[in-house]
Parts: sequence; C-alpha cells; structure tokens
Amino acid sequence: MKYMSHDQPLTKEAILDAAEQTLRRYGPEKTSVVDVAKALQVSHGSLYRHFPSKAALREAVTERWLQRIADPLQEIADGTDGSAADRLRLWMDTLIRTKRNYVLEDPEMFAMYTTVTLDAVMMIDTHVKLLTGQIAQIIKQGMRAGEFKSGEPEPVAKALFMATSQFHHPAHAYQWSSSEIEADFDSVWALLLSGIMKSTVNGSE
Amino acid sequence: MKYMSHDQPLTKEAILDAAEQTLRRYGPEKTSVVDVAKALQVSHGSLYRHFPSKAALREAVTERWLQRIADPLQEIADGTDGSAADRLRLWMDTLIRTKRNYVLEDPEMFAMYTTVTLDAVMMIDTHVKLLTGQIAQIIKQGMRAGEFKSGEPEPVAKALFMATSQFHHPAHAYQWSSSEIEADFDSVWALLLSGIMKSTVNGSE
Repeated sequence: MKYMSHDQPLTKEAILDAAEQTLRRYGPEKTSVVDVAKALQVSHGSLYRHFPSKAALREAVTERWLQRIADPLQEIADGTDGSAADRLRLWMDTLIRTKRNYVLEDPEMFAMYTTVTLDAVMMIDTHVKLLTGQIAQIIKQGMRAGEFKSGEPEPVAKALFMATSQFHHPAHAYQWSSSEIEADFDSVWALLLSGIMKSTVNGSE
Repeated sequence: MKYMSHDQPLTKEAILDAAEQTLRRYGPEKTSVVDVAKALQVSHGSLYRHFPSKAALREAVTERWLQRIADPLQEIADGTDGSAADRLRLWMDTLIRTKRNYVLEDPEMFAMYTTVTLDAVMMIDTHVKLLTGQIAQIIKQGMRAGEFKSGEPEPVAKALFMATSQFHHPAHAYQWSSSEIEADFDSVWALLLSGIMKSTVNGSE
C-alpha cells in the first residue's frame, strides 16, 4: 500500500485515507500509528506530529466519516425545490439509507465507528447538533411557507431526530434488516408529520 | 440461601426467585443450574425437569422480569380516570421510570436481562406486542371519546412506542443520565401528542 512518496507534503487527507485502509485491513485493535506510517512510507515521527496517539487517529477517521454523512444532508437542507415536508422526508430517508448501507456493506468499519463514537461524546454531540440544525433549517422554511405550524424550529427539529432514533441510531442496527422496518418508519413518519403540519380539514375529523 | 425444604413442592415461582438471587450473587456467566439447585436444596434432576438448561432458566427469569414491567402498565391501560391523553402520558412515564430505575438501582441485572433479550427475539417480540396493545387500548378510548383523531389504533400505537425508543429501549440506557433527558422527552411527547390529538384552534395557527 503506497499512498505518496517522501517528497510530497504529508496532508491530513492522505493520512486519513491511509489510516482508513489500514484500519480496514488490520482491524481497529491491531492497527497502530506505526502501521499507518509504514503504509505512507513516512517516519513514525512525522505521523505522530499530526496524530499523537492511535486514539487521536481513530477519532479523526471517525470525524471524517461523520462529515461524509452530514455533507449530502446539508445539500438537501439548503435546497428549495418542492415542499418542506418533501425535503424533510428526503433528508430523513437519506440519513437512514446512508446508515443502513454502512451496516450492510461495511459492517466492520461501522462497528469501529460506533465504538469510537461511544467514547467520543463531544464529537457525536457536535455531529447531532449539526444534523438537528439542518432539520431546523428545513422546518423554518416550512413555517415561513405556512406549511408547518409556527413555533420554535429547534426543539421540533431535535424531537424529530430523537423520535426517529430507531431508524438511524447505530444501537438499533440489528433491527434494520426486519421486513417491517419500512412500514414501521412510514407509521412513525405519518405520526410526526401530522404533528408538525398545519391542520387541514379532512374526512376523519 | 435457603428457599424451601425438601417436603414442600417445588414451584416455578420459587425456582425463579432462587435463580434471580443466584444470578445476582454469581453473575450470569458463573451461575449454573446446579448452583440454583443447591440454593433450593433440591437435586439437580428435579430442577432440570423444570429447566433443562442454564439458558432456559435465564430466559424464564427474564420473562418474569418483562411481566413485572408489563403488569402495572396494564393497570394504567385498563383505567378510565381522566383524559386518554393523560393516561397515555402516565403509561409512558411509568414505562420510562421503570426502565430507568432498573438501570440505576440494579445495573448488573439490567445488563443481564438486556443480553438475554437480544438473543430471545421471540420473547421480546411478544413483550413489545403486549405493550403496544396496551397503548392501542388507550388510544382506542381516546378515539371513542373524540379526544384523538379517528383511525386505526394499532399502527399509531406501534409508532408511538417506536418514536419513544430513545427513552425506554435498553440500547439507549447510556443516555438516560443526561441532564436534558426530561426536556428531550417533553419535546418528543409534545410533537407526538399534537400528531394524535384532534386539532383545536390555537393562537399559533
């Protein structure tokens, strides 16, 4: 595994690429900073200057992984096409699909990230704040457009995120292969949406 | 530890009491059916007739634990005092408080039960069906009383149970000591309730 020669500058991005590959190859327990340095063909010292410990390296890889989840979601939140309700559903579907794909396609790395985030409380806290901020952005648009009941967007956004935990929180990953998971999400979503939409007159009321 | 003498009949209840105490004393890994037989001062054979394996014994103890969670909730579902919305909140508060107390007061047993239920998919499935049936019972009352929007109570009940996972599913136990957990639940509950209540005219609409 060769990522760069000695004469190119050692970028953070290159280190993280190598670290991710090394973690994937040897597993989180067996991977050392030295292994990553070897893969990069650089001295341990130059790597330790960027990442003083194995833990720091793992956290950085995980942080980038979280960013990769958040970036496409930000694009959806920044969008203006269609209704806010549709955008909100697309945002949630994308989050859920991304998490589910990680579990199915790369279960070892998913388990590694999950373990790291359990210890890195601050990191996951920042990530969740970023995601609920995106939801709040969509809700705000829907409130302005008169689609959603008016109010404070932030608590509603946090509530929406928490109320859908079963479908995106790693601790529930073992339930995602259930044949009922899609129907279950639809029921939860219908309930939540009916809580935020401005009420419309319908036959059942 | 003596639970009964040889001349009394060996009831299932007495075995489960002894098993629970033995599990508590030695931990789930170290407890054998023989240990429980010793505590009861009976032969291994008479105990094996009731529980052919350590796994069967642990499952039976866990099943009784789940029943102890469900019984007081059934009483609330059977009640008729106050509004259905109040009963629903009381039901949910009781479930959440019960789970939280187990984690705080008896973390080892809680961990044991959680491990067993992860393997005993059928048992947990039955338990969840029982609980969502209780929620459906309250929702049905609320629909009849014109308090809740009319519709099918069962999918709404399941959705309510799933949307509150973060507050009662053992996988989230590590979050229950958060100082924001009460406020978080209030936000989620407000959102869910506004999804099931018949809409009333209010200032914000």
